[in-house]
Amino acid sequence: MTDLDHLRVVLVATRNPLNIGAAARAMSNFGVRRLRVVNPYEAAFREARSAVGAAGLLAKAEQYENVAVAVADCKLVVGTTAATRRELQHRLLRLDVGARTIKRQLQTGPVALLFGSERYGLSNQELSHCHWLMRIPTREEHGSMNLGQAVAVCLYELVRGQKTAPAKTKTALGKKQKTSATSREVERLTQLLFKVLSASGYVNPRAAAAEEKLRRLVRRMELNASDTEVWLGMLRQMAWKLGASAKDAK
Amino acid sequence: MTDLDHLRVVLVATRNPLNIGAAARAMSNFGVRRLRVVNPYEAAFREARSAVGAAGLLAKAEQYENVAVAVADCKLVVGTTAATRRELQHRLLRLDVGARTIKRQLQTGPVALLFGSERYGLSNQELSHCHWLMRIPTREEHGSMNLGQAVAVCLYELVRGQKTAPAKTKTALGKKQKTSATSREVERLTQLLFKVLSASGYVNPRAAAAEEKLRRLVRRMELNASDTEVWLGMLRQMAWKLGASAKDAK
Repeated sequence: MTDLDHLRVVLVATRNPLNIGAAARAMSNFGVRRLRVVNPYEAAFREARSAVGAAGLLAKAEQYENVAVAVADCKLVVGTTAATRRELQHRLLRLDVGARTIKRQLQTGPVALLFGSERYGLSNQELSHCHWLMRIPTREEHGSMNLGQAVAVCLYELVRGQKTAPAKTKTALGKKQKTSATSREVERLTQLLFKVLSASGYVNPRAAAAEEKLRRLVRRMELNASDTEVWLGMLRQMAWKLGASAKDAK
Repeated sequence: MTDLDHLRVVLVATRNPLNIGAAARAMSNFGVRRLRVVNPYEAAFREARSAVGAAGLLAKAEQYENVAVAVADCKLVVGTTAATRRELQHRLLRLDVGARTIKRQLQTGPVALLFGSERYGLSNQELSHCHWLMRIPTREEHGSMNLGQAVAVCLYELVRGQKTAPAKTKTALGKKQKTSATSREVERLTQLLFKVLSASGYVNPRAAAAEEKLRRLVRRMELNASDTEVWLGMLRQMAWKLGASAKDAK
């Protein structure tokens, strides 16, 4: 077992079977085995199963209905973006910088690396499950890469220079050395906070935008596992006192 | 004119139009403009001319009958290889090592980077025009990369870490980039949270130990100024709903 066995490549709403195949091939080239697909075009996923040298990997790919369940067991969730068209609500790191943090995290537990659909990338809702985002340093005038190529470049950066000793330098993201919370726990916290805020009249329970904003806010806290538990306990108590049953929280 | 204008990407005997298109797209992504094709399958080259964002680049691609003429004006010629099947007669460098030499050479004159056909790679005859060879660090068991992905990875390595990193995003909302909250604000948040938890029955209002624990918890969040404000707003609303006047908070 190597650190890379902790990496999950997550393809979200991929349309083109060639791209799923290309992603799988790059994974096989660089020794990454866990592919997860979220809501792919059915035909695309079926057709992709014959990529050169990656048939075994594709056969074992796991399929999920949404990002939340696909990343539930991961302690770090990183989105990729061309960062061209819109304002981002997340911290954005250049690939070589972000990869250092990912490599460190891979030593201790599962990390998800998300790639959006060919046309639209990752939606704001999908991005809201990410701790931060990463960008390949492409030209501003033509930032959007082919999906299979983007996967290849990201994985290359993760295996690059493997022979050399891992740098122990502290990066901006190095503050949480304790066990991070899983996405499942962090999402539970998000849902519970949303419930408490709804019961308080702070947010409209049906406001999706408010929920996404809250999801990002909670991820920016980068809580470790034990602090997450403390927060869950506090929020459960508040929910109970406010008459909102905590049981309802997903 | 940048150093990369000295780079010529040379595709030798490429069969699949999608691969020529993918190579061109990666070139456009990374700001490399000079594509040369040697003896491509005619139909492949014709069909490739519509790759996303790279039509202009493909229209200007130069076609050659053999490697010798395609690299005639270059001072350094580097071949790429998966280096799996045969004995090589050349010095073989790992991509990140070779790229350093290429970058140095690009400052002074034209460099050719050769990619062989999908099936056979570069022949011994074609390789004989190279000064040395370069290899992407793929797994031994599955070394051969898709052509478009190999081009993308090589070009990425050449632009990687360039200080002139293009595309600065307007809103990298990282907590580190943003102004951190003052201790005054953080303490206000701590007090308000303590008040909400007291009103919920989670802590005893007179428990100093609980208050200290909470203070540490809040500091570990390392909130920036604007997230702190959001939290203050949320907690004020909860306090109000719980019948604990927020005004009392220090």
